[in-house]
Amino acid sequence: MSDRARAGEAGFGFDPGEESDATLAFIGHVRSHWRRGDCPKNLREARERGAAARVVLRPGYGAALEGLEVGQAIWLICWMDGAHRDLALQRPRHADGPRGTFSLRSPVRPNPISLQAVRITALDPVAGIIGIDATDAFDGTPVLDIKPWIGRVDVPPELD
Amino acid sequence: MSDRARAGEAGFGFDPGEESDATLAFIGHVRSHWRRGDCPKNLREARERGAAARVVLRPGYGAALEGLEVGQAIWLICWMDGAHRDLALQRPRHADGPRGTFSLRSPVRPNPISLQAVRITALDPVAGIIGIDATDAFDGTPVLDIKPWIGRVDVPPELD
Repeated sequence: MSDRARAGEAGFGFDPGEESDATLAFIGHVRSHWRRGDCPKNLREARERGAAARVVLRPGYGAALEGLEVGQAIWLICWMDGAHRDLALQRPRHADGPRGTFSLRSPVRPNPISLQAVRITALDPVAGIIGIDATDAFDGTPVLDIKPWIGRVDVPPELD
Repeated sequence: MSDRARAGEAGFGFDPGEESDATLAFIGHVRSHWRRGDCPKNLREARERGAAARVVLRPGYGAALEGLEVGQAIWLICWMDGAHRDLALQRPRHADGPRGTFSLRSPVRPNPISLQAVRITALDPVAGIIGIDATDAFDGTPVLDIKPWIGRVDVPPELD
């Protein structure tokens, strides 16, 4: 278990980071102003701080940007590669007690995949570079996927 | 490249499925009514067909559900394990020409990660079972993560 555990935190008893049920290909990296110790705590705060960012794709992936447009909202899906993966219960600083990992947006989770709903501010498919309005990811964070944000599927309906 | 390619489709020239920049742990599986040949084409159609579904977590992961509640909206993040990963341009049946993979929600992508915004209809942390209102995932689809859906971060702001 993470040696940074706070009171009330609990591990799974195994490390999901040692499993290998499938493998990922990093398609590129985030270029941002953020690093450990100076990073907004979420995308909302990142927008308030006003720092735009870029995604730089690895060679070969730019062709897959065809059809995206400046101004469009996308999902930027990243791999939070510095995160521990073995906590079942965590104690966020804002919470009054431990909470289950799946009830939190913490980077600490079995598969440290992050979702960020951002807008495209610039697009260069040849260079494989996408400008985005904001990110809360550290500079150098690996990117796994980019998808169009679609309101009719990405906003859950109210229950009847 | 996929041997199912349609006119205008193009591959990356390499297979991201052969990369191993990081590894995934399957935390559980979807139990649904869907299989290849009988599956709604998206979550919206799945809701119209009215078939609820479940997520069955692997042993040890149930404790991480603490803090989630019935009725709450969550992200169900899955691994579409049957999908090809090597197409840069695809020709969906509804489109009049090829489109870039990152402009589509197709399961065919370098890292076949799916996002589904669903609601919890039942919750059993001891058994590690979550009832959900709908899914468009095949029965047996591996699950990678569960996160709370949060409107103030998951709905992108309008651009000024």
